[in-house]
Amino acid sequence: MKKRLFTPGPTPVPENVMLRMAEPIVHHRNPEFREILERVHRNLAYLFQTTSPVVLLSASGTGGMEASITGCFRRGDKVITVNGGKFGERWGKLVRTFTGNCVEETVEWGRAVQPERIVELLKEHPDVRGVCLTHSETSTGTATDIRAISGLVHEHSDALVLVDGITAVGAHEFRFDDWGVDICITGSQKGLMMPPGLALVAISERARDIVRQNDAPCFYLSLAKALDSHEANDTPFTPAITLVIGLDESLEMIRREGVENAWLRHERLAAACRRGAEALGMELFSDAPSFAVTTVRLPEGVDWNAFNTSLKYNNGITVAAGQESYKGKIFRISHLGYYDELDMLTVIGGVERALKEIGHPFETGAGVAAVQQAFLEA
Amino acid sequence: MKKRLFTPGPTPVPENVMLRMAEPIVHHRNPEFREILERVHRNLAYLFQTTSPVVLLSASGTGGMEASITGCFRRGDKVITVNGGKFGERWGKLVRTFTGNCVEETVEWGRAVQPERIVELLKEHPDVRGVCLTHSETSTGTATDIRAISGLVHEHSDALVLVDGITAVGAHEFRFDDWGVDICITGSQKGLMMPPGLALVAISERARDIVRQNDAPCFYLSLAKALDSHEANDTPFTPAITLVIGLDESLEMIRREGVENAWLRHERLAAACRRGAEALGMELFSDAPSFAVTTVRLPEGVDWNAFNTSLKYNNGITVAAGQESYKGKIFRISHLGYYDELDMLTVIGGVERALKEIGHPFETGAGVAAVQQAFLEA
Repeated sequence: MKKRLFTPGPTPVPENVMLRMAEPIVHHRNPEFREILERVHRNLAYLFQTTSPVVLLSASGTGGMEASITGCFRRGDKVITVNGGKFGERWGKLVRTFTGNCVEETVEWGRAVQPERIVELLKEHPDVRGVCLTHSETSTGTATDIRAISGLVHEHSDALVLVDGITAVGAHEFRFDDWGVDICITGSQKGLMMPPGLALVAISERARDIVRQNDAPCFYLSLAKALDSHEANDTPFTPAITLVIGLDESLEMIRREGVENAWLRHERLAAACRRGAEALGMELFSDAPSFAVTTVRLPEGVDWNAFNTSLKYNNGITVAAGQESYKGKIFRISHLGYYDELDMLTVIGGVERALKEIGHPFETGAGVAAVQQAFLEA
Repeated sequence: MKKRLFTPGPTPVPENVMLRMAEPIVHHRNPEFREILERVHRNLAYLFQTTSPVVLLSASGTGGMEASITGCFRRGDKVITVNGGKFGERWGKLVRTFTGNCVEETVEWGRAVQPERIVELLKEHPDVRGVCLTHSETSTGTATDIRAISGLVHEHSDALVLVDGITAVGAHEFRFDDWGVDICITGSQKGLMMPPGLALVAISERARDIVRQNDAPCFYLSLAKALDSHEANDTPFTPAITLVIGLDESLEMIRREGVENAWLRHERLAAACRRGAEALGMELFSDAPSFAVTTVRLPEGVDWNAFNTSLKYNNGITVAAGQESYKGKIFRISHLGYYDELDMLTVIGGVERALKEIGHPFETGAGVAAVQQAFLEA
């Protein structure tokens, strides 16, 4: 049986990227690797739409988030986080661990924080040093308006804007420089179409000044060390060499497609996936749906385990379950990274087959037809 | 031109490992991956000769060292480190960063710390909470007697014994349980024959108790989180999936060879490499040579840049330069990981060819003949 991943990390890795990583390993201080690293740095800047450095850490996305907190803040610094799901919650955990002073705004799962609410919080807490946001909250499939919030934060305060762009970069419009973002993190196994193991962190000039003066304890995940090495097309410690080489290949693919085209592709895939699911009687979970992952409520009467077993073991399709109290109530279809329009027929077709197998009533073919209509009648 | 790496990380990756990592990616919560992780955990325990858990971190070896310091100690804890090279120095930097209380014993490069000296230090500093050692100091090619020192530390104190086994595990005899080691770290790109990107940390029962009670700030590199996940054959954050899968393949190779046989193989390769280099008039740098890397002084009159250019660009062989004040004075040949006896003919043969090319006088074939004699007349 063919196996297909529709999960928001890991996401499918293109064959050329897999094969490139299988080539004999090179030493990270050889000129050959330096040349690769230079191109990777250049293409990352393009991906993030910035002239600022985007540094590489050999760690998963959470490592990049930790590096940002320990790099930008000291113990005692007050930081606002928005908890509207597992990953917004993670910002809060990191801030509490490393600064011990977190103003956590809780948002119902599936809802996006309103920009005005951030302004209120800044007025309540004029001593805030940073605002941590989640561009695409993977656990709920919800997108936050980073452009609007970043503008408002800078209008009303001196706080840094930190963005978890882990499932957004490459999928959602994102302009690091134009939007005035100070820190944005992504992970390799997301829009970058790579296996996990690398975190990428863009750092604005203002954030660089703060990072370089900060004496909060850090070492392996030090952004200051990473910035120094970046200037020399180097890394502070032995990097995950094969992953950097694979990243070179996948970034070139994004450059050839054009990052704006990649954003539009994700928007189209998300729209079609939503229409397909709705045509099968599934209600959307989020009021501000992400272009990276579509989250829907399981229809009344559908048992998650039976449905997922059919989907995974009889149809070879892995989607993501609901997390925490939403387990068994929602599920998540990812279209983040290496996906095209026909893949949306596949996943909605698989969902139809699983619903059929467990005896749930629906109009056979309604889902895939809706996907076709979304693409072909747009 | 064929390219051959003789560097102590990255080390060559066997073809079967490269191809295994190039297979389509699997999700880290799928049963298929859990089964792999369970086998990896079991084989790591065998490699470290322990019944304690060996946890996986998606980071390079330095990340594993940091995790050990922040996991075992609190700010203010006094820790002894031994600085006899770049990696012993790194222990000191980590301790100063995270506890701020380091007793650093400096040892001349190329010399191993004497076990009795550690006893003296423990008597001088009865409040020491840990002793950080480097089993094989990669920058100098020097091995430290971990068995002797670990025994003495436990005899004279309650301090934890932390071992950087990054270029030793798999190459040098190492018995975590029998020797009473509390923490040992290795990296994937060393004796494990893998690309870089994973750190592996063995944690004794005594260390586990301390880690679980420690409230020092840590998150991504938390050993407490890693231990909890290990029990469930899981990881706290998305792991570097392809690297874990490759590690499964390379650990199975070590299990089939037998870890004792791997140690003996490295000992034989090191002995032959030393004899070959000495036959070419090169003096050994270390008085306690590592089995992972052989460090020799460049003969009088040999210019490092000319020699290395010939070696690398005309003969395809990459060795490691001397570091810091030893740059241009020593060089390092690695035989750590995926090497066999004929590879030692290759590297010493390459060294001969480079010496010939730059016009350095020596008896042609003396090096390779000495390698043959070391293996065949042993």
